[in-house]
Order: sequence, then C-alpha cells, then structure tokens
Amino acid sequence: MFKSILAAFDGSEGAEAALRKAAELATLCEAELMVLTLYRHHSILEGSMFVIDAEKPDNIDEIMRDHAKDTAERGASIAKESGCENIRAFVKGGPTARTIVSFSKEHENDLIIMGSRGLGSIEGYLLGSVSHKVTSLSECPVLLV
Amino acid sequence: MFKSILAAFDGSEGAEAALRKAAELATLCEAELMVLTLYRHHSILEGSMFVIDAEKPDNIDEIMRDHAKDTAERGASIAKESGCENIRAFVKGGPTARTIVSFSKEHENDLIIMGSRGLGSIEGYLLGSVSHKVTSLSECPVLLV
Repeated sequence: MFKSILAAFDGSEGAEAALRKAAELATLCEAELMVLTLYRHHSILEGSMFVIDAEKPDNIDEIMRDHAKDTAERGASIAKESGCENIRAFVKGGPTARTIVSFSKEHENDLIIMGSRGLGSIEGYLLGSVSHKVTSLSECPVLLV
Repeated sequence: MFKSILAAFDGSEGAEAALRKAAELATLCEAELMVLTLYRHHSILEGSMFVIDAEKPDNIDEIMRDHAKDTAERGASIAKESGCENIRAFVKGGPTARTIVSFSKEHENDLIIMGSRGLGSIEGYLLGSVSHKVTSLSECPVLLV
C-alpha cells in the first residue's frame, strides 16, 4: 500500500524505534525505504553555545554533515538488520520540519515515519514540535512512533 | 506487524481518507480494525450555540449518541468496502483526544489512525489540535492521514 517510505532519523532512541517500524512496514509493503538525517548549518548554530572545535570554526558545517552521514548510515544498518532490503541513506542541511517535508515531496514519498518526540540527541532536532510541524506541512500521511 | 488498529472516524472527508488507509493496513497486517466515533456530552455543548431541538433539550445526549452510532456504522461499511473483514464499530462520549487515547489503552490497540485535521464536520472534533494532542498522549504509534 505504500511504495516509498521516508524515515527521519536523528539517532535518538525514539527515532530508532520509528526506524524499525519503518523497516518492518517497508518490508511488508515491498516499498523502498529512505533514511534521512538532517544537520544544522553553521549559521544556525553561530549564536548558540554549541562549539565543536573552537580552533577550527570553519569546519563546523563539515563536521555536522559528517556526523549526520554517520548517523544516516547507522540508520540504514539498523533498517537492514530489521529485514529491509531496499534502503537508501541521505543527509540534508536545513530547517528540520521544512526540510523533511520538502525532501518527501521531491522524492515522492507516500509516507513519512518519525519519532513523536526527540530524546535529547546532540542536535535535538526531533522534538515534539518538529513532528507537529511535519504533520501540519506534509501532504502525505505521517506515522509518529 | 500491527495486530489491532484503531481508526477515529468523525465522518469528515479527512477521517474517511484515514479510515480507508486503516482498512488497507489492517487487511495487509491481518489486524482487527476498530472504528471509533466520539460524541460530546450535553454538558459540553450547553453553553454553546448548538441546539438540535429546542423543544426536547433532554434528548440531546441521545441524539448525539445516535448520530455518532450512524457515523461509526457508516465507517464500518466504508472499511468493509475497502476489503477489510475484521471490523468492530464503537461510540464513546467524552473529551475527544483523551477518549481516543484511553480507548486505545483499554483495547490494547497498537496503532491509532486518524485524519490530521478535521474538515468542518458538525461536531468538528477531529481538528488539528486533537491529532496533536493524541500524538502527545498516546503510548502507541499514531498515523495521521
């Protein structure tokens, strides 16, 4: 019934539970599964307390992207462990809810799956407010786990 | 993967789309499908402009419950048309989001499906704020269509 499922994955416990459901559902529906991890651009973090490496401020974007890439790949491994075969991992930078929704439109996903709230991961982007925003903006169904 | 699916159905277009997804998913998972329609108790409506029959104010609860029962039965028919076989229809009175969530706990549903927003049905109870409240309160996954 679903052909292309998008799982938003930030590495948190809640996101992992959502990802496992996504993998199970993708297998059942013979759908492709896209694992998407987001990172914040340097500019968004500039005014905050968040400093990864005070000596290399120019690298922050790259470090964030690399960390997101590791997380997305870990997500793909978890989905594979859950029996899913057709998986692709992606990373994107940008405002979380809007980026998830625009990604889903671009890739014609017919279901978005995510944790209903974040659990204090470093980026902390999968907060309840994000899932609410995604459900408000999305044109396809959203499964909150 | 899901064993017992709860579809909240208020008769609106959005709720009907959600119900059809619920029926499809229940069929795919060989799960039972519970269709739940809610009505508001008289006391909640007392202060509002909502008057069904000015001459029989004592009947309002009954009229609301009967209307909810018709809606739930229509929901069950729609689910049946969608190919689902194991369906039960229920009506409940009470505050919408809390009643959906307490029903799902009582019946050990492992998935709640509902429209992401209401479309101006008479009761108007499946508003976006309700779906947000359900996702906040629910202990099981929630699919917003």
